Amino acid sequence: MGGLTAVSATDQERMGRMLLGQWCEAGDRSLGARVRARGVEYVVAEILAGRSPLPATTGIAGRVAAGTTYDDAVQRWIEPALAQAERIGARYVVPGDPEWPSQLDDLHDAAPLGLWVTGAGHLRLLALRSLSVVGARSATAYGEAIARELGAHLAECGWLTVSGGAFGIDAAAHRGALAASGATACVLAGGVDVPYPRSHADLLARIRESGVLVSESPLGGAAMRHRFLTRNRLIAALSRGTVLVEAAVRSGGRSTVREAAALNRVVMAFPGPVTSPMSAGCHAVIREDTAQLVASPREVLALVEGRLLLEDQGPATQADALGWREQRVLDAVPARRPAPLANIARLAGLGLAEAMAALGILDALGLVRRAGEGWARSGA
Amino acid sequence: MGGLTAVSATDQERMGRMLLGQWCEAGDRSLGARVRARGVEYVVAEILAGRSPLPATTGIAGRVAAGTTYDDAVQRWIEPALAQAERIGARYVVPGDPEWPSQLDDLHDAAPLGLWVTGAGHLRLLALRSLSVVGARSATAYGEAIARELGAHLAECGWLTVSGGAFGIDAAAHRGALAASGATACVLAGGVDVPYPRSHADLLARIRESGVLVSESPLGGAAMRHRFLTRNRLIAALSRGTVLVEAAVRSGGRSTVREAAALNRVVMAFPGPVTSPMSAGCHAVIREDTAQLVASPREVLALVEGRLLLEDQGPATQADALGWREQRVLDAVPARRPAPLANIARLAGLGLAEAMAALGILDALGLVRRAGEGWARSGA
Repeated sequence: MGGLTAVSATDQERMGRMLLGQWCEAGDRSLGARVRARGVEYVVAEILAGRSPLPATTGIAGRVAAGTTYDDAVQRWIEPALAQAERIGARYVVPGDPEWPSQLDDLHDAAPLGLWVTGAGHLRLLALRSLSVVGARSATAYGEAIARELGAHLAECGWLTVSGGAFGIDAAAHRGALAASGATACVLAGGVDVPYPRSHADLLARIRESGVLVSESPLGGAAMRHRFLTRNRLIAALSRGTVLVEAAVRSGGRSTVREAAALNRVVMAFPGPVTSPMSAGCHAVIREDTAQLVASPREVLALVEGRLLLEDQGPATQADALGWREQRVLDAVPARRPAPLANIARLAGLGLAEAMAALGILDALGLVRRAGEGWARSGA
Repeated sequence: MGGLTAVSATDQERMGRMLLGQWCEAGDRSLGARVRARGVEYVVAEILAGRSPLPATTGIAGRVAAGTTYDDAVQRWIEPALAQAERIGARYVVPGDPEWPSQLDDLHDAAPLGLWVTGAGHLRLLALRSLSVVGARSATAYGEAIARELGAHLAECGWLTVSGGAFGIDAAAHRGALAASGATACVLAGGVDVPYPRSHADLLARIRESGVLVSESPLGGAAMRHRFLTRNRLIAALSRGTVLVEAAVRSGGRSTVREAAALNRVVMAFPGPVTSPMSAGCHAVIREDTAQLVASPREVLALVEGRLLLEDQGPATQADALGWREQRVLDAVPARRPAPLANIARLAGLGLAEAMAALGILDALGLVRRAGEGWARSGA
């Protein structure tokens, strides 16, 4: 416990969010509003003191017994989580962290307290150019072909495919991105260490290799039914736009599309045969003007890139979004042949550790690659 | 020729339009504007006198030789047309006639001078509740099935299906209406006595039995390529709305849709598989917001009837549009068992000929039917 009393303020905040994330149901607005008004540490303290004004719907009441001390809480909730995180190589990303995707702040009180992330990708940088591809689990061959092509096209154009790892459209989109050697992000309803659906364990493992698995559910959290709907708001908020590929009239995909529209993201849907119930949800969102009709992956990107140009806000490419350290390190990597780390660090005017961290980010972005003992530009 | 010098003013106007219709290309705006400004008889006279200011593009110059007298013109153009009209049972309908569909006036200077009509239907009354169903000649089985179902559904709901008699979508829409014992109108690019395409001669004959064949081209006029585009404006203007079922990106169907949109008609399109080039034109008009997406015949009618309610202008049903004679005759036809013509005429306070003419219109509208020696309400 010794190390934990010496944590920095930032770590206090991080641990507080980790606690609240285990005590409360994700996306609870009353909790989000209280955290925003009073700060994480205050909200944790008032819960432990048994004087939290939060409603029962947050789920806290049943989880935190009266008289629980902060040290008890650390022992019971933080230590097991950190141990499991270390076992599986997960990190807990919170607002203010370099990897925090700041577009999630658009969710206001419903923003996640923090995200559990695994995988080689850098969530914030990948998400800058990302599109969500969503749709029916019971997709048709038509829909799966579209999702696969879309994932592949996005990958080829340097865009991240975000989806939910489910059967049908989700899996086809992830697989399309992976087949084109692109990064893809899977936002899970349960913990990032709980492969769901189980038969997608291999797919999720492949996603981790170049992309990320993301969840606001605690490690070990089960993929419960109600978590899918709250998860959908993260899929919508993480990306620049959402594409509905196939959906029945009543479907989770339509809920993601509604969230994306409410967040002013670019919302698109693929039409299909009017004889297919799996296209009826797509036709409905086009008809009600929630989504724009798209008929090809090229059109999808044209709409999203058109919006980026129009808005002229935020970085339009990953390179635009690099911090000054990453930019200096990128400039220091020779254009033609690989250079050793020491040379790059010296040229960038940085320490070895700093240069190495920056190279890691640039690597995750696909801008540099390891080459023998040194580093090279990706194209070189 | 004696009879022709004694024609009424109305007949002078009718013959003048018949002449201009043979001298000029259909839809010529400079001619339409001149006719509107000066009147038909004046425009005919100035053409015969060789002092017409109309541009060469109207086609007059090559057709009316200098020194042609009005009597020459009657002999050369009117008499053969009237003789052929009598042979094939065609009528020439002009603005002001009871059968003139006044919505064509929306075309302003491009409105047709007159329409050649054959068939048992009453063009104006049928067109009050009409929809155009258009699309590709090289339609797929998917598109033809939609067009057929749509034609049948419109017929079942008492709506006229308007189309162009072509292969593919047009024919499927006509056939769907006929299969449901409904009326359908075919707007031809050539003369109403020139079956085009030839292999549709039987289909056109069936359309005549309950509906109408319509054309602004002179009798005997060939279905020339440029006439299809000008014909499309009539299809768009005649009906309350236009439905595009299948179309390539460049297609005549899209031109009809553009005309319909320019005329503020309800414009709709059926989506299809994004893998089908025959749906690409539909997706394009939905995407560019020229057309609303529809996925079923029921939706098509809901949109059009919704617009009628919103506009609250013009008769929404055929019965609303009946003249006072037809209304009185309809009231005089007993609800339960057939009655002889004489009884109906007496009850309506009309002469036998007037009552018979009104019954003809009511019959064409499907409101009454012949029953043995007398007449009955259709439902009876």
